[in-house]
Amino acid sequence: MSQPTDDAPLFVAELAVRWRDLDAFNHVNNSSYLTYLEEARLQWLGQIRGPWFDDAAMPVLAASELNYRLPIAWPATLQVELRCERLGNSSLTLAHRIVDAADPARLYSDGRVVLVWMNPLTGRAVALPAAVRSAADR
Amino acid sequence: MSQPTDDAPLFVAELAVRWRDLDAFNHVNNSSYLTYLEEARLQWLGQIRGPWFDDAAMPVLAASELNYRLPIAWPATLQVELRCERLGNSSLTLAHRIVDAADPARLYSDGRVVLVWMNPLTGRAVALPAAVRSAADR
Amino acid sequence: MSQPTDDAPLFVAELAVRWRDLDAFNHVNNSSYLTYLEEARLQWLGQIRGPWFDDAAMPVLAASELNYRLPIAWPATLQVELRCERLGNSSLTLAHRIVDAADPARLYSDGRVVLVWMNPLTGRAVALPAAVRSAADR
Amino acid sequence: MSQPTDDAPLFVAELAVRWRDLDAFNHVNNSSYLTYLEEARLQWLGQIRGPWFDDAAMPVLAASELNYRLPIAWPATLQVELRCERLGNSSLTLAHRIVDAADPARLYSDGRVVLVWMNPLTGRAVALPAAVRSAADR
Repeated sequence: MSQPTDDAPLFVAELAVRWRDLDAFNHVNNSSYLTYLEEARLQWLGQIRGPWFDDAAMPVLAASELNYRLPIAWPATLQVELRCERLGNSSLTLAHRIVDAADPARLYSDGRVVLVWMNPLTGRAVALPAAVRSAADR
Repeated sequence: MSQPTDDAPLFVAELAVRWRDLDAFNHVNNSSYLTYLEEARLQWLGQIRGPWFDDAAMPVLAASELNYRLPIAWPATLQVELRCERLGNSSLTLAHRIVDAADPARLYSDGRVVLVWMNPLTGRAVALPAAVRSAADR
Repeated sequence: MSQPTDDAPLFVAELAVRWRDLDAFNHVNNSSYLTYLEEARLQWLGQIRGPWFDDAAMPVLAASELNYRLPIAWPATLQVELRCERLGNSSLTLAHRIVDAADPARLYSDGRVVLVWMNPLTGRAVALPAAVRSAADR
Repeated sequence: MSQPTDDAPLFVAELAVRWRDLDAFNHVNNSSYLTYLEEARLQWLGQIRGPWFDDAAMPVLAASELNYRLPIAWPATLQVELRCERLGNSSLTLAHRIVDAADPARLYSDGRVVLVWMNPLTGRAVALPAAVRSAADR
């Protein structure tokens, strides 16, 4: 975790693992990692200054890439660190690190998702909302 | 879908979308795609000849890469096509295509997951079970 | 299953258990039963003649009562039988039986849910839509 | 919340609603309430003095009864209050109240679940573990 200051995350969400996130192998199921990322992402978007969506510009997930580094047990508290990896005209690549809140050197997952803002009526990509661009571009 | 015969999927699972797979945006949530892949993968493994795991060799998901091509609505029936993309000593890369069963030209998602067989006691990668290697290597 | 004809279900949904429905005890998690009921209920509502909701009348779940008779394993195919137990001005009590499709004498769960149609703007109960009343009242 | 002191809950769990708990109606899905109860129950069991299960005595859910009093939005923090309503030889009835942590007068759900301790090998009910009886009997 000796990252330079200018690589500070955009946002860090602290989330509790739920027992229901486990599967029959007694580890957090792979699909729950995407739920953790979604929760962190929406918490981040919810606290930026200005609207991050409207009727003509909604974010959709275009791609996800996850590495599963270590199994996650229950109970645990996680930190989900989000960083902007790429800022396009219509899209945003958010890199993540999921670590243990009690031991941040314990990396459970890294990877990224690509979000694209679309007009739900036309299905076309639209420009990123100004508030999102501003919040992501630091 | 004019794929050559030798590119026939290893396995095709037919799955029903559930209303609960939708999220507040009224489309199937991104995490449910991993559940569809898991279901297809376990159905495939469940029908191969011979054991695909034992106490000393269990598959774990090491990585996932998904492209979300089109939103999925409810109700729908999906086909999940699995293909072996790479066969390593301990690992297997399974590519997928999720299409609409009623219109297989409608591609909802493609991508891949990497599975690694591990000894849960030692945490070390182990050789792929013979039955898995044989089923994947065609 | 020697029930008299006039006790025939309103609707029977056939649903596949998913591996993700299991929890760390390797049985279908108790919350998934409500998802099975929801799926069956929405399939029933989706096929009745006439609208079952509009902007001024939406169903909400007011109560649920479930008995868990036997654990459900994976894989399995279930049949969810729905019967109307009570028809009120604004509410509908739907009884259920979840049985194994391959062995309908195998009863996994019975119980009921109460649905109330509400105006989402006012939060007041409203009359059941005519199509719902008609479909439920046999 | 003017309950007498001797009606203090056995346990109060504080849980964060996740966006994924919402369904397409933009409220927390009815199945997620059971997940909240499960999480609270397992947190309670996890902190009692002494073992609450072993190979010959595992709790299974026998029944659930939930009233859905108010819709739950996201984001929100919930308090799940658990009270012992009945203590049998093999079973425990746990009543619940789910309230808003920021406004505990806001009651989202009440009801109860019945847990029975079973020997998983024989499928027979067994005596409640002493630690559970002691923790529940106040």
